[in-house]
This record gives sequence, C-alpha cells and structure tokens, in this order.
Amino acid sequence: MGAQVIKLTQTVNKGGCAAKIAAIELNEIINKLKFPKKQGRLIINGEQFDDAAVYKISKKLYLIKTLDFFTPIVDDPYLFGQVAAANAMSDVYAMGGRPVLALAILAYPSSVFEKQIIAKVLQGAIDNLKKANADLAGGHSIDDETIKFGLSVTGFTDNNTLWANNGALAGDKLILTKALGTGTLMAGLKFKTLSKVKLEEAYTSMRKLNNIIDIITKKEKKAIHAATDITGFGLAGHSYQMAKASRVSFKIKMSSVPVFEHVIASLKMGNLTKAHKTNADYTNKGVVIDGSLNKEERLICFDPQTSGGLLLAVDPDYCEGIIKKIKREFKMARVIGEVNPRGKQDVYFCR
Amino acid sequence: MGAQVIKLTQTVNKGGCAAKIAAIELNEIINKLKFPKKQGRLIINGEQFDDAAVYKISKKLYLIKTLDFFTPIVDDPYLFGQVAAANAMSDVYAMGGRPVLALAILAYPSSVFEKQIIAKVLQGAIDNLKKANADLAGGHSIDDETIKFGLSVTGFTDNNTLWANNGALAGDKLILTKALGTGTLMAGLKFKTLSKVKLEEAYTSMRKLNNIIDIITKKEKKAIHAATDITGFGLAGHSYQMAKASRVSFKIKMSSVPVFEHVIASLKMGNLTKAHKTNADYTNKGVVIDGSLNKEERLICFDPQTSGGLLLAVDPDYCEGIIKKIKREFKMARVIGEVNPRGKQDVYFCR
Repeated sequence: MGAQVIKLTQTVNKGGCAAKIAAIELNEIINKLKFPKKQGRLIINGEQFDDAAVYKISKKLYLIKTLDFFTPIVDDPYLFGQVAAANAMSDVYAMGGRPVLALAILAYPSSVFEKQIIAKVLQGAIDNLKKANADLAGGHSIDDETIKFGLSVTGFTDNNTLWANNGALAGDKLILTKALGTGTLMAGLKFKTLSKVKLEEAYTSMRKLNNIIDIITKKEKKAIHAATDITGFGLAGHSYQMAKASRVSFKIKMSSVPVFEHVIASLKMGNLTKAHKTNADYTNKGVVIDGSLNKEERLICFDPQTSGGLLLAVDPDYCEGIIKKIKREFKMARVIGEVNPRGKQDVYFCR
Repeated sequence: MGAQVIKLTQTVNKGGCAAKIAAIELNEIINKLKFPKKQGRLIINGEQFDDAAVYKISKKLYLIKTLDFFTPIVDDPYLFGQVAAANAMSDVYAMGGRPVLALAILAYPSSVFEKQIIAKVLQGAIDNLKKANADLAGGHSIDDETIKFGLSVTGFTDNNTLWANNGALAGDKLILTKALGTGTLMAGLKFKTLSKVKLEEAYTSMRKLNNIIDIITKKEKKAIHAATDITGFGLAGHSYQMAKASRVSFKIKMSSVPVFEHVIASLKMGNLTKAHKTNADYTNKGVVIDGSLNKEERLICFDPQTSGGLLLAVDPDYCEGIIKKIKREFKMARVIGEVNPRGKQDVYFCR
C-alpha cells in the first residue's frame, strides 16, 4: 500500500499533452528534413507531423497507425493508464477507424516506482483497450528519469470512408464532443490549487473513448466530412490545422463551446501551462479572437487538452440527427460553429 | 556548428538497449496483469512482452507491428537516427517480414538541443527507412529531461511464412548474422576509455538493416524455422527465450561466435553495463556456461546489443547455401551452434 504514497503528477515537470513539443518548433525541425518520395499506398503521411498515418491495404481496407505518450496528468496510476489509452486510440477514431491492437511505450525510474504502480498503469490501458475490442500486444520499456506512458495503436476502417482533416466543406456545422479545460484543471491539480474532488467530471471525460463511430449509421459516417481530435494544441490549434487543410474558414461561437466546471475559476487563479502561450503563438497568423471575448474565454481557446473530444465538420442536413445521438453518450457535446468559404482568417472565435 | 559541441552519450546515464527495463522486472509486472481473451486474429501477442505483434489480416497477409526507442548510444546524431531505425525495423525482419511505415517516438529537452541536432537524428532514421522502402509517416514528440528516440514500425509478410521464435527444431543449425560486443564498446565510449576511431566496425554493424529476407529465396525463407534479433538481453537472453519457446535445447560454440575488434580489451578494462548483470540473473535458470570459458567469453554472452544481428534456426540441408548468401552482405555472420532435443538446460555455451 506504500506504493500509493507517490503522487504521479508531482514526479514530473509537465503533465499530459501539455508536455508536447510546441508546434512551431516541430515545424522548424520538419522543414529541415529531406523526405524521399512517399509510397503510393501511403495516403496520409502526416506532412504536418500528424499523429496518424493512413496506409491503403486494399480498396476496402485502410490501415490507420498512430502513437501518443506523455507524463502523468493525474495521480492515480490506473486512471493515468485509462487516459493514456483513450488519448492514443482517439487518433484512430478521429480518422473514422476502429482500433485493433496496441503496443505500450513505457519509461520510468525503476528504482523509484514499485512494480505495482506500473502494473496499475498498464491495467488501466488494457481495460480501456478492451472497451474498444483492442488488444495490448506487447511494447517497449526503458529505465528513465521520469515516468512516461502511451501507446502505438493500429486500427482499420471497414470501407474507404476516411475522416481526414482536409474534408470540411463550406456550409458544414462544427460539433465538439467533449468539454474543454483539462489543461488548466490538471495544472491546478499539479500546483495544488484545486482540490481533487472537483475534477471527477474531467477525469470521466479524459478516460472516455472517442468512439463516435460506434453510435452512428453508415450514412451519418459519410455525412461527417472531416474530423480531428482536440489535444495538446488546443481548440485553436487543431481547428486552425483543420480549417487550413480544408481551405475553408471556421466560425466558432465561444458561448456554445462546452467547458468543464471550475475551468474559469482555475484560469482566474492563474493555473496555466507553457502550451497556453505556445498555442497562441502557433495560431497567431490564422486565428482571430473577437475583442468581445474576455481573458478566460481567450485562454480556453488555447488550453491544451489531454484526451480531448473530436471536432467534426458535419453536413448540415445530418447535423441534428448526429448531435442527438452523440449527446446520449457524450452529454457535453455541442454544435459550436460553422464552416464558411475561405476568408481572411482560418478560424474566427466570436461570442 | 555549435550544435556539434553536445556529445549525445554524455547527456544520459545509459545508452541504447542497455537502458531496457530488466527482463525479470518486466515479467514480475506482466504477471500482475489481467489480460482479456485475445482476438483470434492476433497470432502473436507478445505474452513475453515481445517487441513484435502479429495480426492476421487475411490468409495471405500478416501485419507485423513493433516499437523500440532508447537513449543515445553514439555521439553523432545522424548515426543515432540510423541505428535507432535499423534497430526498430529489426523486429519486423526477425519475423520474416518487410517494414512499410514508421512513426517517430521522440523526447528531448527543447531548451538544451538545437533543432539542427534533432533534425539530424530524424534524417538518419528517414534515410535508413528509405533503404527498406519504408516511410516515416509522423510521430509524437515531447519535452523531456533527456533525449530518447525510436520508431514504431509496421510491416507485412507476403505470405503466411512467419519466423516466430517457437519454431526451432532439433537438428537445426544456428546462424548469427552480426558480431557481438556493442554493449561493452558503447559503454567504453561513454566512459571515455575507448577512442572514437576504433568503433567504426560496430557503428557500421549497428546501422545495417537486418534484411536477410531480401537476399534469400522463398524456399530458403521456409527453411528458416525460427528467428529472433539479439538486442538488450544479449545472446544469452534472446537464445534462452527462443530455445524455451521452441521447447528445444541450444548448443552454442563460443569459439565460433563473431565478436567485434576491441571487445575483449574493453571487457578487460571493465566497461560494463547494468544489463551484463541483469541478463545473467535473467538467464540463470536455463543457461549453462561451460567452465572452460574465460571471464570475457562469459560476459560476451550477456553483453546487451543495440541493433544486433538475427539468430536464425535453419534446416541443416539449407544452412550452407543460406550462410554463403548472408556472408556476402554480413561479413561477420557465422554458424554458431545447433539445436538439440529438449534437455536439462535451455542453452549451453561451450568452447
């Protein structure tokens, strides 16, 4: 039982997706690289260092491959494993696929952590993978200064309907499936300015699978023209990437955007991550935030999410039916905006 | 040019596969886990926390998935990227497959490393992947205390001939395709007891792809009954796993085992890793080393390899033809022993 004494979040400097290398830095590195001509079967190769690649096995079978790993975002090792698994699988769901198998990416100081703690992290992942009918089939583990955990996940689509992030069409409605604010809340947990009890809503959200695919019909699947999951670069960063890739403009109504309890209070306390700043820098060129939004609303746009929801660009004729179904499983899901023809800005956040 | 001042190996405590979590510790953790019943399509699920999983897409198409990552084993970032890629792809080759696509696993202190260094690591990987006709198709990167790099690699077999590690048959010959000793040599590099010039032979070996599959015929492929790659657990550890899985006994002649230049000298200097000890502990129950072997020869059995060679169990009728072909590309390849019916020990190292 002594194992429980270690508070996972206190063993690291940064937690969860807030520890991601900033998008600007990543782009500078990628711009230095020389890539050979890619294979014809590689349909999506993450030119923007996307987390998911898509490889065409046959006309009817597309392989989706992704990986994600991070430092602890929560203190409970079992929950950490659940969140890491939901977060890693999310990229497969965001492509319109279903996960099938996963390998563990594990690093930890073996002299510090009891094996029981590591086993709980892995069990959390195994149990969440099971909900997706996916197997943990091995992995790689190294002795390291701090603990990190994640998964490389492989999935498939059952036909060639892919939700790439370049498919949004003017006229589409934008649906967000989970609330925002895990960045500031988990920072508050780490800084000890927020009591544990208050964060259950966010914990429940972070461990929840983004398996929208399991609750809609085939027709509705086709009516979703583009999708991405909201993680470390925040709603601003990921909507910016999607709008740019689709060559359209997004208008997002912040008054419709779902936010967890205590998020405003946490932001007012100053619970911020480095990513709040780097995400603002990254989206500086293409994202405009209306002057009517207050400081906290602005910060929510840049809040780095861990295991955040999906942002879907949906055919307006199908939007009502789809949001109704999604809301049964994802109570915080909302229509948050619309897709317009390409304009001066890529994303416009208004009240 | 200032970027070159950082010596990668001096930024970490342990290098390469020597940083792997010890096999005993890993088994203790895995034994605590509850796995659900695995899917029927998952043919190899790494019950021993293998690095590679095999998933049956169809009778004619098997997917192989693996991942590997580690701290720098060498100071040159481009070489580090090459070695990491060769090492990660090796698990696919060890299954009889060919790699197709890869995602990067990257962690580094962004305040310490110039972007140029990270770009060189990635370029080394991209260029080595290209040799295998595989693409780097994305990845995940985090800000961390020390640098780590690796790949999750997906490959396929073109038919259902898999080189699992449980297929060795009594009467088979054992072929090792690369020399041993990277553990002690890279420790010597790190401890500054070995000059850089002397290690070219090991560098060349570590960055070389284990693409035996590309130089043999289909018939010869079928004549290889089992394969594994020699990495962190050393020749003793990996041959032990293969012999146990195949329910046979290996006899390995140390006088035939290829070893890099300067390895004996390096061992005499005391250039050892923690893995030399943990590998000996791990194999304690099933590996017997003949009393006639001297101290250095014993240590070579446990030396943790980074991007080591393949250990192949080969039908004796095909052995001569196969070793002849392999030697053209892998000059240090040797027949190092034979497979016997199950006996008192799993592996017996003799002179």
